[in-house]
Parts: sequence; C-alpha cells; structure tokens
Amino acid sequence: MSKKDTETISRLLDQLIFNKEGLIPAIAQQFDSGEVLMLAWMSPESIEATLVEERVVYWSRSRRKLWRKGETSGHVQTLMEFRWDCDSDTILLQVDQSGVACHTGSRNCFFNSI
Amino acid sequence: MSKKDTETISRLLDQLIFNKEGLIPAIAQQFDSGEVLMLAWMSPESIEATLVEERVVYWSRSRRKLWRKGETSGHVQTLMEFRWDCDSDTILLQVDQSGVACHTGSRNCFFNSI
Repeated sequence: MSKKDTETISRLLDQLIFNKEGLIPAIAQQFDSGEVLMLAWMSPESIEATLVEERVVYWSRSRRKLWRKGETSGHVQTLMEFRWDCDSDTILLQVDQSGVACHTGSRNCFFNSI
Repeated sequence: MSKKDTETISRLLDQLIFNKEGLIPAIAQQFDSGEVLMLAWMSPESIEATLVEERVVYWSRSRRKLWRKGETSGHVQTLMEFRWDCDSDTILLQVDQSGVACHTGSRNCFFNSI
C-alpha cells in the first residue's frame, strides 16, 4: 500500500459513518494468519494518522486521546490493508502485529470462551 | 459446543459490558478459513438465543428487533465457538457461514479497500 494523499483520505472520511461519539469500530486482523487480534475505536484523526504513518493509531476512549498502538510497549501494528464494510460503519485493518496485541500479554484479546 | 444451560448464560451476561443502547459488538469469523465476515450487534436476548439455538441471532438496530441471521435468505451462521475479549466489551463469533454473509451477495462485508 502506498502512502495515501490528502484527497483520498478526505473522500474516505466523508464516506465512513461515525457514531454519536464520532467514532467507528475497527477490527484488527493478522494479515497472513487470519487471527482476529482485537477491536478498538477510531476517530477521523486516528484514521488519517493510520493511513499516513502506515501503522495503526486508534482513539483511546478511556484516555480520550490518540493511541499509537505499541508506542510504549513496542507492539506496533503495521498497516497492510485498510478495508471497510458494505454500510461503511465498520473498519477491518489487516495488520502485521509485532509481539502481542493484548495488554494481558496474550497474542490476541479473545481468549475467553464458553 | 454443547447447548448451554441457563446458569452459564446468566453468568456470561453478567460479565459482558453493554453500551448505552444495551448492545455489544460481535465480529463473525468463518471458523476454518479465518475470513472476517461481518460485524453486527447483540443484545442480552440475542446472545441467549444464539447460545441456545447454536446459530447466530443478532439485534437489528434498524428494525429494533431480534435478527435471526439467514431467516429469510437461508444464509445461516452456525455457531462453532463463542469468544469474548479481555475487557468483555466485544464478542468474537466463530461460525460456519452458509452461503454468503453480506446482503450485497458478497461472501463477506469488507469488500471496500484503499
């Protein structure tokens, strides 16, 4: 994926549907294995940063600021492909996860099951 | 997965965190290929129906009622595994998708990309 220009990003942001908090859910999936790593939320600003930097930047709902995934842990998500769904209200990020995705130390966040 | 009893489902519903609308996002993933099919929303009642019936039942936000996936199209999602994430606010449904997941006729909903 080549770095995206301002006009392309602007068109994308016009098309996507954000919720009342101005956010959209984003699923992160390991690009080569298909493993679903986590779900987090993105703001328009975080989407722009993700596309420009080609690494995933979420919006932290608890800290109320941009969250450059891996900034402190080193567990960066390199963006491989940016996809979105048929009704433009969910993003699918295909990424290359460095280390682990989950703050618990687990590779992915979905370790609970019944 | 064996059919879940009332007590197990009740404990799960106590643990999950629902948003202000009483809903939680659920990612549907094809269990054997890893393909991410769609994201939709579940209410407590839809989770219970999913676990009891072992086929996926969402909450339709537009129609404001239970949405038995595939009820009219036949494109049922058979539940293979019910997972949830570290902070209990996202569900990952591993399913066996009959036919296609998307109302557009696409196998999955994430056919847009930049």
